[in-house]
Amino acid sequence: MKLILIIDILGTIAFAISGVLTALNKRLDPFGILIIAFVTAVGGGTLRDILIDANVAWMRNLTFVYVIFGSTIFAVIFRKRLGYIRRSLFLFDTIGIALYTIVGVEKGIAAGFHPIICVALGTMTACFGGVLRDILCNEIPIIFRKEIYATACILGASAYFLLHNTPISEDFIVIISGSIVIIVRLLAVYFNLSLPSIYRKEVDETMS
Amino acid sequence: MKLILIIDILGTIAFAISGVLTALNKRLDPFGILIIAFVTAVGGGTLRDILIDANVAWMRNLTFVYVIFGSTIFAVIFRKRLGYIRRSLFLFDTIGIALYTIVGVEKGIAAGFHPIICVALGTMTACFGGVLRDILCNEIPIIFRKEIYATACILGASAYFLLHNTPISEDFIVIISGSIVIIVRLLAVYFNLSLPSIYRKEVDETMS
Amino acid sequence: MKLILIIDILGTIAFAISGVLTALNKRLDPFGILIIAFVTAVGGGTLRDILIDANVAWMRNLTFVYVIFGSTIFAVIFRKRLGYIRRSLFLFDTIGIALYTIVGVEKGIAAGFHPIICVALGTMTACFGGVLRDILCNEIPIIFRKEIYATACILGASAYFLLHNTPISEDFIVIISGSIVIIVRLLAVYFNLSLPSIYRKEVDETMS
Repeated sequence: MKLILIIDILGTIAFAISGVLTALNKRLDPFGILIIAFVTAVGGGTLRDILIDANVAWMRNLTFVYVIFGSTIFAVIFRKRLGYIRRSLFLFDTIGIALYTIVGVEKGIAAGFHPIICVALGTMTACFGGVLRDILCNEIPIIFRKEIYATACILGASAYFLLHNTPISEDFIVIISGSIVIIVRLLAVYFNLSLPSIYRKEVDETMS
Repeated sequence: MKLILIIDILGTIAFAISGVLTALNKRLDPFGILIIAFVTAVGGGTLRDILIDANVAWMRNLTFVYVIFGSTIFAVIFRKRLGYIRRSLFLFDTIGIALYTIVGVEKGIAAGFHPIICVALGTMTACFGGVLRDILCNEIPIIFRKEIYATACILGASAYFLLHNTPISEDFIVIISGSIVIIVRLLAVYFNLSLPSIYRKEVDETMS
Repeated sequence: MKLILIIDILGTIAFAISGVLTALNKRLDPFGILIIAFVTAVGGGTLRDILIDANVAWMRNLTFVYVIFGSTIFAVIFRKRLGYIRRSLFLFDTIGIALYTIVGVEKGIAAGFHPIICVALGTMTACFGGVLRDILCNEIPIIFRKEIYATACILGASAYFLLHNTPISEDFIVIISGSIVIIVRLLAVYFNLSLPSIYRKEVDETMS
């Protein structure tokens, strides 16, 4: 599927650029910027591959390494103008998350894991690059606080798993479950949704 | 050994709930709370399994996944009342640490590692879930600052290793070394002990 | 090569002591100090071994474990005087970085990785112990902000890779590429160089 590869590369570009933006904000030097871009783009997949004891993908296939190098240089050079393409970036990023989720679920199914673990692997592939980025930048991961996209990944990954034993063709399953991730995230951002916070005040009282 | 499984589950519950409490304090959303509960409960064992290149336990046996899900939901619902069961929680937690220590040492012995590495694996199994929890919550790990329980784990793990080549039955070794971990920690908390801090003032002077 | 082993041990000592100094500054307890010393000294190599799915070196050969224990005890006892030997420490540290870089590249070549990955593995071996140290101490890794030594490692690692297919003897390649790492770092520190920071003001404006 050529289409998937293209979208996957667009997703990697979006993740790498999101890493560069975070690193610039933290005033890191060029080496730091490159590492953060790299970790944001491949961190989730790397953690997944270590957990399922598979070969780490980017170490054997350098396409994504080159894509990340290129995106980082591009983002640093055009850092002043990134504001203008922010909307397109957000779209790539959302598509990237959808694709990464599907890649993760597929790897889990191929390795014979339980459905719950497959859904977790899909979500991890999509979300943990950002978690590692935030840890390296000394922040509480944003996805633990106000981003709903983990929920989008979990829904899309579950759909993929439910459909993969039906006679529906794989291409179509990818489109359906990918669309679920994308639509849930777009709706969430459009309506400014986030997961309801557990009442804090009570907790603060209980804890003090 | 049915007894060990039961206590192991109680320990997992205690670790998961401790993760939920930390996450609530940090005002994380439900996804963040679940991840922190999960990492706190299985993080130490996962790091151990990656280091010794074994299969990651919770990915193939879902009992603990369900236990963590259940504990997290329970802890969130009854968050107001957790103050009342704090004492029982502390006990579960201490028992959990003791059990996790023994599991880690046993895995190290089974894989033929040197005694020092076995003791390190036991301590890591018991302590690194909490370390990862603190890193994700953007804190310096509490165990590096004022908790004595790593010392308790090291003592218990060493006892286990010393006894396992004697004719003493395994059940009895588990009870002895587990009790050492529990008693050292209870005594430390009761007498408000912590490891002596290295003189700071001197250091500050040296460093500045 | 006896010489390499000796210098490697000196490097481990320097890394461990740098970990102790950071941990003392953060007012950690003895357990925390030992863990930070350990992570600083072996963290980079451990991450490398996990990524290339090799056995983690220090778990099977305890020489370095003993060296780290010894260095930690030494550094804690003589913490008041470490100021005086800071210059020698810096030299050991620089030599250690050079050696760790070469060890990482060699492992990558032996496992048949692409040159870029080999250079990355060398740099990772030399630099990520410090990154993990800073994460555990709740700091943004210093190497992402103002240290030029990653650049020194990348240059030395590239030289090693370029030379290893020539008829030059391995010993000589080690000396050349190691010297590049050392000289670049010494020059950088002497002339107070760091990588140029990307203009921040623009970025702040773009982001806000």
